[in-house]
Amino acid sequence: MVMQVCDLPIPKKIRLAVKHEQTQKTIIKINGVSIGGDQVAIMAGPCSVENEEQMLQAARAVKAAGAQILRGGAFKPRTLPYSFQGLGKEGLELLAEARDETGLPIITEVMSTEDVELVEAYTDILQIGARNMQNFSLLKKVGRSNKPVMLKRGMSATFNEWLGCAEYILSEGNTDVILCERGIRTFEQITRNTLDISAAPIIHQISHLPVIIDPSHGTGTRSLVEPMAKAAIAAGADGVMIEVHPNPEEALCDGGQSLSPEEFMHVMTGIKPIISAVNRRL
Amino acid sequence: MVMQVCDLPIPKKIRLAVKHEQTQKTIIKINGVSIGGDQVAIMAGPCSVENEEQMLQAARAVKAAGAQILRGGAFKPRTLPYSFQGLGKEGLELLAEARDETGLPIITEVMSTEDVELVEAYTDILQIGARNMQNFSLLKKVGRSNKPVMLKRGMSATFNEWLGCAEYILSEGNTDVILCERGIRTFEQITRNTLDISAAPIIHQISHLPVIIDPSHGTGTRSLVEPMAKAAIAAGADGVMIEVHPNPEEALCDGGQSLSPEEFMHVMTGIKPIISAVNRRL
Amino acid sequence: MVMQVCDLPIPKKIRLAVKHEQTQKTIIKINGVSIGGDQVAIMAGPCSVENEEQMLQAARAVKAAGAQILRGGAFKPRTLPYSFQGLGKEGLELLAEARDETGLPIITEVMSTEDVELVEAYTDILQIGARNMQNFSLLKKVGRSNKPVMLKRGMSATFNEWLGCAEYILSEGNTDVILCERGIRTFEQITRNTLDISAAPIIHQISHLPVIIDPSHGTGTRSLVEPMAKAAIAAGADGVMIEVHPNPEEALCDGGQSLSPEEFMHVMTGIKPIISAVNRRL
Amino acid sequence: MVMQVCDLPIPKKIRLAVKHEQTQKTIIKINGVSIGGDQVAIMAGPCSVENEEQMLQAARAVKAAGAQILRGGAFKPRTLPYSFQGLGKEGLELLAEARDETGLPIITEVMSTEDVELVEAYTDILQIGARNMQNFSLLKKVGRSNKPVMLKRGMSATFNEWLGCAEYILSEGNTDVILCERGIRTFEQITRNTLDISAAPIIHQISHLPVIIDPSHGTGTRSLVEPMAKAAIAAGADGVMIEVHPNPEEALCDGGQSLSPEEFMHVMTGIKPIISAVNRRL
Repeated sequence: MVMQVCDLPIPKKIRLAVKHEQTQKTIIKINGVSIGGDQVAIMAGPCSVENEEQMLQAARAVKAAGAQILRGGAFKPRTLPYSFQGLGKEGLELLAEARDETGLPIITEVMSTEDVELVEAYTDILQIGARNMQNFSLLKKVGRSNKPVMLKRGMSATFNEWLGCAEYILSEGNTDVILCERGIRTFEQITRNTLDISAAPIIHQISHLPVIIDPSHGTGTRSLVEPMAKAAIAAGADGVMIEVHPNPEEALCDGGQSLSPEEFMHVMTGIKPIISAVNRRL
Repeated sequence: MVMQVCDLPIPKKIRLAVKHEQTQKTIIKINGVSIGGDQVAIMAGPCSVENEEQMLQAARAVKAAGAQILRGGAFKPRTLPYSFQGLGKEGLELLAEARDETGLPIITEVMSTEDVELVEAYTDILQIGARNMQNFSLLKKVGRSNKPVMLKRGMSATFNEWLGCAEYILSEGNTDVILCERGIRTFEQITRNTLDISAAPIIHQISHLPVIIDPSHGTGTRSLVEPMAKAAIAAGADGVMIEVHPNPEEALCDGGQSLSPEEFMHVMTGIKPIISAVNRRL
Repeated sequence: MVMQVCDLPIPKKIRLAVKHEQTQKTIIKINGVSIGGDQVAIMAGPCSVENEEQMLQAARAVKAAGAQILRGGAFKPRTLPYSFQGLGKEGLELLAEARDETGLPIITEVMSTEDVELVEAYTDILQIGARNMQNFSLLKKVGRSNKPVMLKRGMSATFNEWLGCAEYILSEGNTDVILCERGIRTFEQITRNTLDISAAPIIHQISHLPVIIDPSHGTGTRSLVEPMAKAAIAAGADGVMIEVHPNPEEALCDGGQSLSPEEFMHVMTGIKPIISAVNRRL
Repeated sequence: MVMQVCDLPIPKKIRLAVKHEQTQKTIIKINGVSIGGDQVAIMAGPCSVENEEQMLQAARAVKAAGAQILRGGAFKPRTLPYSFQGLGKEGLELLAEARDETGLPIITEVMSTEDVELVEAYTDILQIGARNMQNFSLLKKVGRSNKPVMLKRGMSATFNEWLGCAEYILSEGNTDVILCERGIRTFEQITRNTLDISAAPIIHQISHLPVIIDPSHGTGTRSLVEPMAKAAIAAGADGVMIEVHPNPEEALCDGGQSLSPEEFMHVMTGIKPIISAVNRRL
């Protein structure tokens, strides 16, 4: 079929992250969830781990609504040193406790080479944040981990720069790399970012790596999470990452874009017909 | 339902284009097609009208595939004065001929105040291009027309600037304004523009006006038209605008983003399950 | 000397606006002022013409401080139709009166093809604003005028797009085109725009046309006008355009970036050593 | 004098990097050079340290032309893992050798928390690159160093984000922070970046920290280094950073923007009248 022909140029200097020899999609399996295959992976949970009760409530809620992976931040990159920086190791322990109770694998961010061993001892997927996309020392370090890595796109990175960063991880031997579009910076000021939905079909043309889309950070706006999650899945994303908090009004960060458990349940109901329409499944 | 609450601020100085008093969506009816209601409007046709055969073949093809509105440019805004500038009045006549044969209403661009009378004598919808979004003289002139106006978003315009331009048209008395997202300029270089799918849900929160999304100009890439059309519809767009040419390789402009009749038929087949999934119809 | 070699590519499809055959700079003479030669042209005056007293006071002040050209807007492009749109023909008459009294040639904006005859009957230089940079009908019309045209750069235009617009004017026969950098849109929010000082040396490498830089619109901030005017001249600009109002606090538009007569006098004193340092003169 | 009044808002949440209590400029003294005072500091040298001969030739050349500080990269952030990554420790040793011979203090980049001790053992100023501007772990680590830190602005960072990163360093106790503007990403494609000259007057209004401007990275174009260095100094920059290579055609990185020793000598001659015009000295 004509539409499957690739119109976009495959960058020649990138060896592993693009479709030169490997033309089959990379599928990453984590505790029974497959990322990059038929399934649409739903990663959900709070922006940051705040305390045991908050984390367990969030974990139960996202599990009940059908999410397969639990997110939560223990190390938080903040614009100023005086903002809440995350609970660190205690946050990792609370995430592990939530996994033990719900069975959901967890994903959490690592911000420093010095914390990689600590974080990989707890998490199922290591997340590299947008601000660290080109922190090459960190990329090389997680490239030597045996845990999958989800690499967020930098705020004004091009696709080829992003794939170049994935190459840093892959070239160290870690083949399990997931890309995550989280919104790019544009001139628009009524939303926090502009979510680039085209990341899914573009990366799928050039690369074999799976693509997750994050409509929570990508819009910064609660009411836009559902329509943009639908758009992401319709465009072929391999999953979505959504912020859910038991009580968004009291969240220590990103409350304005976090969904309550009821709102998240509503979003999950809303995306199911789209998942079916593109012949995929939860 | 919680998700319908509007999170975004309604700009106070804009009176007519936003939801102050008019909270019901504006629905614009043209020859039996409704834009802004249950229907998803498909506008399709060549970038520019080139000759009778090309125009009629394109018109028949898009009609056969299910499009309800025929597009084609008679006046073309080009980066250099030496590029093909469109057939002008002859192009309008060929568009009218294609409408007569197929019954499809037509949309075409007007670039100058001096041409408004001429163009509105032929077309069913007047289009204002992205480069003229803030051509305020032209906006006022089409604001006094009795034909609907589709206003494309400027390449780096914010939503409030775009709505301010719609206000210029509305404040002259023309209530039939359609907004069209056609891609914004970003740092990405492997696509022509970055299609901002969030335009649909954002405009629908702030404004009562219908929103069309143009994945052809919005990506500049043939293979991205289908996934981005699906995303647009999933996010709530009231229609899509797609470039179709009988022979894209020989198109006088925008060949790289134009679909052949077969490719367009394939896209129409692909979007139908998404249209159903969001409870709309062609 | 090695530094004079041009590193930047001359666009091949642009014929008249770039250095193919014409390698000498274009010098435009208006009432004894030369733009593009040894002189640094200072264009100054209020954002908009408001009334006779305001206009005459502004004209006397900028003349006294050493400006050679008087600016003032009679037709104003505004984001919303409800904002002050300028005095129109009455504004042109007040500008002419100020010229008669001071002897300063005037520059004012024309926004519509229909107003070109009217405006050129009064003004010495026609200005095309940033929002109309790609209003091709207007460009062609002023290309047939016998008055010089100053073309402002669009808010997110590339250099080649800008030169392509100059080409529209030149290709109609008008050889007197001045380019004006007025700030580009960036992510920065504490200033209105980001003034691209590199416009001067870049355009001078590629094109023979003179370049004016506008630090008032380019920063939107009174206190930044002086340092950025100095930078513009140091980088080789052929002149600067500065907003001056007898009473900035009461200006109908752009008061925050307008200088009082005293402040403008201070700026003129400040730039003189820079003008000497680059071997130019007022 | 009116023009010294600050028009720009001082961000309240930033405590140390802005002018709340400390209104006098920070002056940083390194081996007899003062950064932030009357002197204009010239930092020059090759993009990367390649070998002993190249480094010594570059050092002698920049010293002879009047530069006071020697730059050179031993750890290089590169878009792909297969590009030359710098000589590491060997590069630091060659830098130290060049310092011993010429007496010029040196500045070099540190990319990883793990390398901070190593790099600070050799260098006089630690440089944090644009890609690591928000590598908060690294910022905290150099904030505990007793060496001055020069923090480059991220490619699409706002001024307040940049100052927030300086705050990370200052809040750990290191008061010697220099800010360096190195060009922001814009839509322009004929230059590598767009150098934001307004960084100098804007930062000087809001902050007490010195500002260096880098016209080499900021334009990526050899012929633009001189005019933009002049502009930077005219706008009040406390210094400029310029890439110089004994043989730019054979440079392992950034050859297109590197000056030969003769070209650098020419630039130094060209900027002297501007330095005098703003009442500063080398």
